[in-house]
Amino acid sequence: MKLLIIHGPNLNLLGKREPGIYGSLTLAQINDMIHSKAAEMGLEADTMQSNSEAEIIGMIHNGDFDLLIINPAAYTHTSIAIRDAIAAVGKPAIEVHISNIHGREEFRKRSFIAEVAIGQISGFGAESYLLAILAANKLLSKEQGHS
Amino acid sequence: MKLLIIHGPNLNLLGKREPGIYGSLTLAQINDMIHSKAAEMGLEADTMQSNSEAEIIGMIHNGDFDLLIINPAAYTHTSIAIRDAIAAVGKPAIEVHISNIHGREEFRKRSFIAEVAIGQISGFGAESYLLAILAANKLLSKEQGHS
Amino acid sequence: MKLLIIHGPNLNLLGKREPGIYGSLTLAQINDMIHSKAAEMGLEADTMQSNSEAEIIGMIHNGDFDLLIINPAAYTHTSIAIRDAIAAVGKPAIEVHISNIHGREEFRKRSFIAEVAIGQISGFGAESYLLAILAANKLLSKEQGHS
Amino acid sequence: MKLLIIHGPNLNLLGKREPGIYGSLTLAQINDMIHSKAAEMGLEADTMQSNSEAEIIGMIHNGDFDLLIINPAAYTHTSIAIRDAIAAVGKPAIEVHISNIHGREEFRKRSFIAEVAIGQISGFGAESYLLAILAANKLLSKEQGHS
Amino acid sequence: MKLLIIHGPNLNLLGKREPGIYGSLTLAQINDMIHSKAAEMGLEADTMQSNSEAEIIGMIHNGDFDLLIINPAAYTHTSIAIRDAIAAVGKPAIEVHISNIHGREEFRKRSFIAEVAIGQISGFGAESYLLAILAANKLLSKEQGHS
Amino acid sequence: MKLLIIHGPNLNLLGKREPGIYGSLTLAQINDMIHSKAAEMGLEADTMQSNSEAEIIGMIHNGDFDLLIINPAAYTHTSIAIRDAIAAVGKPAIEVHISNIHGREEFRKRSFIAEVAIGQISGFGAESYLLAILAANKLLSKEQGHS
Amino acid sequence: MKLLIIHGPNLNLLGKREPGIYGSLTLAQINDMIHSKAAEMGLEADTMQSNSEAEIIGMIHNGDFDLLIINPAAYTHTSIAIRDAIAAVGKPAIEVHISNIHGREEFRKRSFIAEVAIGQISGFGAESYLLAILAANKLLSKEQGHS
Amino acid sequence: MKLLIIHGPNLNLLGKREPGIYGSLTLAQINDMIHSKAAEMGLEADTMQSNSEAEIIGMIHNGDFDLLIINPAAYTHTSIAIRDAIAAVGKPAIEVHISNIHGREEFRKRSFIAEVAIGQISGFGAESYLLAILAANKLLSKEQGHS
Amino acid sequence: MKLLIIHGPNLNLLGKREPGIYGSLTLAQINDMIHSKAAEMGLEADTMQSNSEAEIIGMIHNGDFDLLIINPAAYTHTSIAIRDAIAAVGKPAIEVHISNIHGREEFRKRSFIAEVAIGQISGFGAESYLLAILAANKLLSKEQGHS
Amino acid sequence: MKLLIIHGPNLNLLGKREPGIYGSLTLAQINDMIHSKAAEMGLEADTMQSNSEAEIIGMIHNGDFDLLIINPAAYTHTSIAIRDAIAAVGKPAIEVHISNIHGREEFRKRSFIAEVAIGQISGFGAESYLLAILAANKLLSKEQGHS
Amino acid sequence: MKLLIIHGPNLNLLGKREPGIYGSLTLAQINDMIHSKAAEMGLEADTMQSNSEAEIIGMIHNGDFDLLIINPAAYTHTSIAIRDAIAAVGKPAIEVHISNIHGREEFRKRSFIAEVAIGQISGFGAESYLLAILAANKLLSKEQGHS
Amino acid sequence: MKLLIIHGPNLNLLGKREPGIYGSLTLAQINDMIHSKAAEMGLEADTMQSNSEAEIIGMIHNGDFDLLIINPAAYTHTSIAIRDAIAAVGKPAIEVHISNIHGREEFRKRSFIAEVAIGQISGFGAESYLLAILAANKLLSKEQGHS
Repeated sequence: MKLLIIHGPNLNLLGKREPGIYGSLTLAQINDMIHSKAAEMGLEADTMQSNSEAEIIGMIHNGDFDLLIINPAAYTHTSIAIRDAIAAVGKPAIEVHISNIHGREEFRKRSFIAEVAIGQISGFGAESYLLAILAANKLLSKEQGHS
Repeated sequence: MKLLIIHGPNLNLLGKREPGIYGSLTLAQINDMIHSKAAEMGLEADTMQSNSEAEIIGMIHNGDFDLLIINPAAYTHTSIAIRDAIAAVGKPAIEVHISNIHGREEFRKRSFIAEVAIGQISGFGAESYLLAILAANKLLSKEQGHS
Repeated sequence: MKLLIIHGPNLNLLGKREPGIYGSLTLAQINDMIHSKAAEMGLEADTMQSNSEAEIIGMIHNGDFDLLIINPAAYTHTSIAIRDAIAAVGKPAIEVHISNIHGREEFRKRSFIAEVAIGQISGFGAESYLLAILAANKLLSKEQGHS
Repeated sequence: MKLLIIHGPNLNLLGKREPGIYGSLTLAQINDMIHSKAAEMGLEADTMQSNSEAEIIGMIHNGDFDLLIINPAAYTHTSIAIRDAIAAVGKPAIEVHISNIHGREEFRKRSFIAEVAIGQISGFGAESYLLAILAANKLLSKEQGHS
Repeated sequence: MKLLIIHGPNLNLLGKREPGIYGSLTLAQINDMIHSKAAEMGLEADTMQSNSEAEIIGMIHNGDFDLLIINPAAYTHTSIAIRDAIAAVGKPAIEVHISNIHGREEFRKRSFIAEVAIGQISGFGAESYLLAILAANKLLSKEQGHS
Repeated sequence: MKLLIIHGPNLNLLGKREPGIYGSLTLAQINDMIHSKAAEMGLEADTMQSNSEAEIIGMIHNGDFDLLIINPAAYTHTSIAIRDAIAAVGKPAIEVHISNIHGREEFRKRSFIAEVAIGQISGFGAESYLLAILAANKLLSKEQGHS
Repeated sequence: MKLLIIHGPNLNLLGKREPGIYGSLTLAQINDMIHSKAAEMGLEADTMQSNSEAEIIGMIHNGDFDLLIINPAAYTHTSIAIRDAIAAVGKPAIEVHISNIHGREEFRKRSFIAEVAIGQISGFGAESYLLAILAANKLLSKEQGHS
Repeated sequence: MKLLIIHGPNLNLLGKREPGIYGSLTLAQINDMIHSKAAEMGLEADTMQSNSEAEIIGMIHNGDFDLLIINPAAYTHTSIAIRDAIAAVGKPAIEVHISNIHGREEFRKRSFIAEVAIGQISGFGAESYLLAILAANKLLSKEQGHS
Repeated sequence: MKLLIIHGPNLNLLGKREPGIYGSLTLAQINDMIHSKAAEMGLEADTMQSNSEAEIIGMIHNGDFDLLIINPAAYTHTSIAIRDAIAAVGKPAIEVHISNIHGREEFRKRSFIAEVAIGQISGFGAESYLLAILAANKLLSKEQGHS
Repeated sequence: MKLLIIHGPNLNLLGKREPGIYGSLTLAQINDMIHSKAAEMGLEADTMQSNSEAEIIGMIHNGDFDLLIINPAAYTHTSIAIRDAIAAVGKPAIEVHISNIHGREEFRKRSFIAEVAIGQISGFGAESYLLAILAANKLLSKEQGHS
Repeated sequence: MKLLIIHGPNLNLLGKREPGIYGSLTLAQINDMIHSKAAEMGLEADTMQSNSEAEIIGMIHNGDFDLLIINPAAYTHTSIAIRDAIAAVGKPAIEVHISNIHGREEFRKRSFIAEVAIGQISGFGAESYLLAILAANKLLSKEQGHS
Repeated sequence: MKLLIIHGPNLNLLGKREPGIYGSLTLAQINDMIHSKAAEMGLEADTMQSNSEAEIIGMIHNGDFDLLIINPAAYTHTSIAIRDAIAAVGKPAIEVHISNIHGREEFRKRSFIAEVAIGQISGFGAESYLLAILAANKLLSKEQGHS
């Protein structure tokens, strides 16, 4: 089983900027943690980052994966196109946020993505991704269990 | 006289996904129907698809066309930039939707594009494009009639 | 197969008033165009006009037709009763507008009718009706194809 | 280190009613899973359920715990008093939901609790609680690491 | 000291289209004016234009500059991602508009960018950029004065 | 004592269309039930149906009755004129709905009529009318008791 | 020069009901006052009353008049169709109200009619009509003065 | 067949306070009327009153009943938890109000309960309960008729 | 009997500026017309103009008058203090506007003053004042008639 | 004369938690101050605290008191039931807040209680209660003065 | 220590007008009470009244005082300028209202002043000022206690 | 050519209060800078400050100037009267703010003035005025160039 992990706009700067808010881990370090945790669960994992709404849509369309873990960052609140891409491919998706979006600006409370996702995990720093992998593992096991 | 037909984000998946909602025709098949109908009307037709807001803006800026037929898909509701591009080039535009956007989620009712278009056709499946070509033909004939 | 075409309030004045906005064709001329186009498609067509919400409801209730084409004019935005009539009779309906309602006053953007229609065509002048007949023909052919 | 897990109103019915929505596990079974997972992490766990806003406030006030995991259920959207209780005791809190509250009725999108919580996990069924325990373990380890 | 000047979507058409609204200067001519004024102030200036939200984010991330002058055009009102990019790099930014956005459509009044910028200059045509350079010069002098 | 029972727009279709929603009783059958129940209570009853807002206003103005039972159907949500008619004649009125309007579309939740009525009964199918007659009987007995 | 005075829904009850609010003059008495005042000004006056939106539209369409004085009553707040009729015939119109609509329920503050009228007079009882006739006289004299 | 009748907060004061609004009958007297009417229908009836949201939830969870009649009083407008309890137990429910909630303060117009109830009866004083029993009887008979 | 006529902010510029909107009469000329008309009615009239909210309040407090005619201009929409002054002195007031405020910007539709006035006359140019004097005369005659 | 002082949810934690916001006085100390001040005024005072909406309603129903002083804390903004209880018992009530609720989160600005209270005192710390007692004393003296 | 007490617009009419709402005490009498109470507390007090927003701003700017007690009357809801003046001088301020503004019109619930004040006292008639003086005394004593 | 520079309410305190927000320059110092810069441009400049809306309107009406530079401060958001004054005199106006109003409280984002101004400059401290003078110089030169 294979996971696709997408990091949205500005997340390439993780660990380099604003460590007070987003933590001191770089995206590379987070990706290492993601790969370790996935391996531990016996799952493959592809990690990608893009600042482009269109590229993210392309990753969702083309990717060869069983479950999507996506941190849509700023696109969470503005992209109906990414929402439609997730709905179109019909694969289960988990929305992840490093910071607690519910405790920030008003405009960060509306998520177009969560409405088409299985669930949302927000506020646990880089740990949010690892929790998502655990949740993904459970979901995929259950699906396999049915077959 | 030449038409530019732009298909917005996620429409490359037509016919492959969610046929229950979007029908079983692929984008290639729809483009064939578009070219046939245009030919029948004695019109040239360029068809393009993009998931990228910027590419769509570029197509509108650079395209050598007399009338634009655009299915902006999810960008209908979020892109002021595509709206501004249409207003900037000053060519007539027709907005097209495969599904009836007025009968779906609340956020799909607001169109930034329709406010700068000649008209909107929504809800007739792939047929929506062909109706737009007929409308375009009438509009272009009238313009020529004036000259 | 038979079409019912209903023209809503104030449309009896077409061609006589405000030609700058609504065009110079009279309702009689538009009805002639409608009948020609319908005949060309091998369809019967009844055309009716009324300024009365109740009469329009009655036309929908009593009419012997296979598909409704309706330009509800001002009632588009205020009549839940016409909406309920369309939903009640269960026949397919196409909403038509001569001007582009999406580019006018704010209160003209909300349509109670579109939410129960197959689709909406707005902004192409009298041509909007002819496009609706073409769309109707396609829809009715498909239905017949199923039987 | 000790966790307090609070289940809000109506969750005593879990597994007995509406299994289609909330799954077939009873609250007792979920509590067993919670205790196992906590034990595995070397954490103590107290689980409580109440339909009473006041009792939940009391549990938060009096409980002898290091971190709160709370599924406030319907009180998520209406209880400023529980929010104030969490803010008052100053212990870290994680908000949990079995179903994906972001994909349900409009009134379930506003959470008074998430604004004072560390993070929110929603949509993974009973698994949501286990993910919260893992997140709690990480948070508590980090805190201990500082001392 | 070095300035980065970013021109957002559709601004490549300046001077070619709608001169009544946006003036008759081309973007090249405006860039010349920008370079002259910057040189006059003893400042380096890089000018870039893009219709792509992602490219603009990239310019902000990668650019080697001391202060950003940005005319986000249509993205002013829709891009939280560009806002986050500006906040992330932590360089001072000045928002510029050729037309007076406060006197246009309702949807052009909300700026996501201004909330993270030093200030906003709108309504003075191409002159808006030159005023921004003067403001930038003052800000940079003051900062240097502190060191 | 005499009751006037008014059935609003589209209710002439009862039993013939959408029995899944509105039940399988025809309006004639419901009127029979109404007359029986009224007779049983020793009350006269006039039943009328109209799709016309104006006719309904006329019925209220001219009717010779002691208490009005009205199912305003779609006019519930749009007719200030019927509301004003009820307020003008100063007779007690009971609002009745076959379906539960509080559990349907958002626009069906606002009733202009209920604000000038004694009470509202909604959701019990044809039985809603009979309950209204019982309520009417009580109200009229009380009034007579005062004299 | 000829005036058309239209009294909207429920105004046939004037003087008979709720004299506390609407005064004790009957519509016939008000019409007498209207005819006297018009005669005094050397103007013809037709007075009409209807509870029907469609009939009022018909009066506006067909009437042979130079200026319209209309008390749209409840239709003030709900009829876009009457508004469109006034705009369509292109004759000057004055909106009149017996009570002060600005000091009543919230839903009586929005007038669709006033937006296409020359002016509005509200709150002076039957006198409102006479003031409107005086205003009409001035407007018509001015127009004649130009010819 | 057995009914559960729940009286919400403050209803224990009935008849003792504000008789002008809520009538002069005490809750005990109303309960007597309820028991008589239920007996007359051949139905058992349990009546309960509570000021506590949690106790009401408990009554709904634990009660041994076939149909719920509930006057949620102030909780009508604030309790999602009672709504969820009703949805969870899956028994039919009828919402009852002594006063006409649609004609009072704005905040009393929104009912969380009605959206999950069969129907709502409001405005008939104590009689509202008796009407609900009659409605309940009909509903239960129909259900039995099916078996 | 004595009238106080107050002209609000910017009205001192009448006739000098924007004649296209406000007409070519100066305030002095309008005041002459007011005095003539008042004399003709046998009424005294004081005319005052102020750009100051506080001075207008003072005029209302101190003025020795029987009825107030006020054109509050921009303060119509922003001054609760002038509203409170009118309510405090308890004299009848008539609100007057030269232009039709209902057909202008959205923010000009809300009047704090109309809610405490007898009536409102708007849209008839300088004539609006003369109509108000006629209305005032009627009101004052009626009052005298009572004594 | 006897006062009932009710402290709402979370106020049992006063002085122990968040002294920066709520001050360092415990509830016991505040109650002592309340009793001293009341004694000084010659008034009896009962002080009670509860986290339960239902218990607070019960205190209001059953309490033997002449005037209520209530700090409803979080229930200020969510409890229509407490509001109704105050309205039902018909005793004068004073609303008290330790912090200035008008200068905090948006959702703390709406008070259901203040609308049925004599007055509101907010922002003076524990002193708010003592001011309320002084106000109560004045109000009760005046009432006695009338008898 | 010195208090500045500012009475806002229309309060010069106190006792002379609308005694039913505002009480029968004149402003002079209230000022006497204020001076007595202040003297009793050992505080100096300046009392001023103005109908002018600008004068009130001037009083706040120039006044030689330690604490401001202000009844901003109608300016409470409309004056950002007075709010800014209070914030600018940085002296503690107490907002006072004679009537209970929370129980009046909707537009009286929003206070721009309360957001920059220490606290608000509303609804106790002239007594509201005396309570404010007591509160002021406590606040000033505490401040002195720190020095 | 002559500039009028108006400083709105509270700006007389500049440099004396809240230097952290508004800088340490006094209004006199800023006026000196303004005069120097204007002189440098060959422009006359009158600087005025007022806390009074009416005085500001008067300055605009009476001033002998070619272009207005105005920092309306708090009146930006509340004064339609100043807006109307600017529109009435028909001279070009530039809106200036010392702080970035777009990054402050919600109520500071709406500007009535910007809608009738040429442009807006906000956020550059005292420098905002100097930038406005430069912009003014350009605008006036252009105008002269046309003559």
